[in-house]
Amino acid sequence: MRDPILLTPGPLTTSLATKAAMLNDWGSWDATFNALTAEVCRRLVAIIAGGDAFVCVPLQGSGTFAVEAAVGTLVPRDGKLLVLVNGAYGERMARLTRIMGRDLAVLDFGETSPVDPDRVARTLAADPLITHVGIIHCETSTGILNPLEAVARVVQLAGRRLIVDAMSSFAVLPLDAREIPFDAVIASSNKGLEGVPGMGFVLARREPLLAAKGQAHSLSLDLHDQFTYLEQTGRWRYTPPTHVVAALRTALDQFDAEGGRPGRHARYADNCARLLAGLAGLGLKPFLPSHLQAPVIVTVHAPEHPGYAFPAFYDRIKAAGFVLYPGKLTAVETFRVGCIGAIGAAEIDGAVAAIARALQAMDSI
Amino acid sequence: MRDPILLTPGPLTTSLATKAAMLNDWGSWDATFNALTAEVCRRLVAIIAGGDAFVCVPLQGSGTFAVEAAVGTLVPRDGKLLVLVNGAYGERMARLTRIMGRDLAVLDFGETSPVDPDRVARTLAADPLITHVGIIHCETSTGILNPLEAVARVVQLAGRRLIVDAMSSFAVLPLDAREIPFDAVIASSNKGLEGVPGMGFVLARREPLLAAKGQAHSLSLDLHDQFTYLEQTGRWRYTPPTHVVAALRTALDQFDAEGGRPGRHARYADNCARLLAGLAGLGLKPFLPSHLQAPVIVTVHAPEHPGYAFPAFYDRIKAAGFVLYPGKLTAVETFRVGCIGAIGAAEIDGAVAAIARALQAMDSI
Repeated sequence: MRDPILLTPGPLTTSLATKAAMLNDWGSWDATFNALTAEVCRRLVAIIAGGDAFVCVPLQGSGTFAVEAAVGTLVPRDGKLLVLVNGAYGERMARLTRIMGRDLAVLDFGETSPVDPDRVARTLAADPLITHVGIIHCETSTGILNPLEAVARVVQLAGRRLIVDAMSSFAVLPLDAREIPFDAVIASSNKGLEGVPGMGFVLARREPLLAAKGQAHSLSLDLHDQFTYLEQTGRWRYTPPTHVVAALRTALDQFDAEGGRPGRHARYADNCARLLAGLAGLGLKPFLPSHLQAPVIVTVHAPEHPGYAFPAFYDRIKAAGFVLYPGKLTAVETFRVGCIGAIGAAEIDGAVAAIARALQAMDSI
Repeated sequence: MRDPILLTPGPLTTSLATKAAMLNDWGSWDATFNALTAEVCRRLVAIIAGGDAFVCVPLQGSGTFAVEAAVGTLVPRDGKLLVLVNGAYGERMARLTRIMGRDLAVLDFGETSPVDPDRVARTLAADPLITHVGIIHCETSTGILNPLEAVARVVQLAGRRLIVDAMSSFAVLPLDAREIPFDAVIASSNKGLEGVPGMGFVLARREPLLAAKGQAHSLSLDLHDQFTYLEQTGRWRYTPPTHVVAALRTALDQFDAEGGRPGRHARYADNCARLLAGLAGLGLKPFLPSHLQAPVIVTVHAPEHPGYAFPAFYDRIKAAGFVLYPGKLTAVETFRVGCIGAIGAAEIDGAVAAIARALQAMDSI
């Protein structure tokens, strides 16, 4: 049987070409691999039109490792981070900041509202100790899209610096460094770029990164050290996930062939619209109003059926070849369906059909 | 052309079967992948005969991330770590301990001597603040083998706890938890296990790990949190490098088929002896006396030839299909040749022949 289609927000379904790029071995000290790293970094900076002002710092590990590295490296030990929270990933950024011992403020907007730039402005005006602001571009726990550009303007006006967790929006939603003021954008190999998991990266404004020497709370997660070593030697500081990097390069080839970010966004938007229409036809309701829905992951209210239980529903749909994602909301019973990955209309239609059959099976019990 | 043979201490040459295990996509939340993780963890604990006393905590990232995680999680914030240094990896353990703000003592044995258990005993007797001792089993910067068992006895007698960086010795040299007292052993997927790089793991004694709640300096590198989440849910806390884990499972199949650790050790010992004999035939001298030489990586004195320069030497040997590793010693000019990976007599003979041709080419310039 074929692999199940992963309707999850990463790891996701990747193309065979991307996986086949892992059939080579690479020496991590060797010039051939150094060139591969340099190429991948250059192409990642180009996606945000970062020019010479931005550099790419790749990092081993999951996206969370890269978020922690960005906060730990860029926020000075005597700095203070304001985290804008409306879901699990905002909460995680706050938690990792607290654990590393940085001063922290949290603005919580609940699970159903986007970040409000006016509240951010008032908070910054009231607390001059805040040096940095952290925002989740698309909060994957619901799929909610936050108003990044408006928040970035407010942060800039207040003379503070912005760190953007763009994990699930990167290479999908518009994010242009010439138009939106920020110091760092964090993402990973295995979401909109459709690579395999195993590395994150931070696109950091060169100047504050170079000024961040000795600020990090961790050797492994020190982006300044990682970057200066990379710039001096062409090599990752510690053993890189060589196969993952090679897969990302091949995934970037497919990204370019699809028309880059606009092309990728168009396919995901089609996936999302098709999914929403299909679910509506089954009587299933999306959790978010459409103007807050990013074309990344759709949170769906659980069927109002006495026979519904997520594990059995999930297993039935998996047996049909589609892997859903559980809900992540505290107060409402939901499940999630990703729109991203190397999938299109056929896979979305198949998933909707599998969901339909699982609903019918519930009725017949 | 075939991929170059990687005579490096990881990433190293892996089998095609191991790489081909990466041609599937896996959902990180899914039961199928959970079973894969559980299987890999169980098999890793079995390699040290850890029984019920030890658990495996897999961690995203390179081996250094796992070393930092072990120190940060297991050494209390008011604890003190004595690091036994005789090369770059010991120095790195000391450096990451300093950066995370733990109290630190260092015993330095130079680059050419193994750790001396008597000096360790005297240091522990003189400093009651030391709670933990960190040792590198095989110091990859030279290939030197440290007397782990004797040091472990000394640490146990002094009532302190031992953390072992077994990165390059794991699954190769004897390391039995029933015979050697330690609290944690750290290794990675991409050395003696012959997997691909992208994850480390810590085999930790269950009791001190469970007592380590809240000690870590980092969310991403908190092994207590990683383990309790894994135990409760079957899942990695944050996105795992799914393809790397799948490759490791297949690499473990080959490890078992080879006769486990003794079988792997026998092949590497053959590789090492063959390499040393071949190099001796070319007039090249190993840096270490044979009783200190682990069958992992051989440090070789650079040829005493006015035309020698490592970059050109390296390039010539790479063109013949073999990738060497540079030296890492501060005072002596050396290069290194790994004995580990999915390689045997044919590859070692080929490497020696390529080195011979590179030496001849130097003579003819």
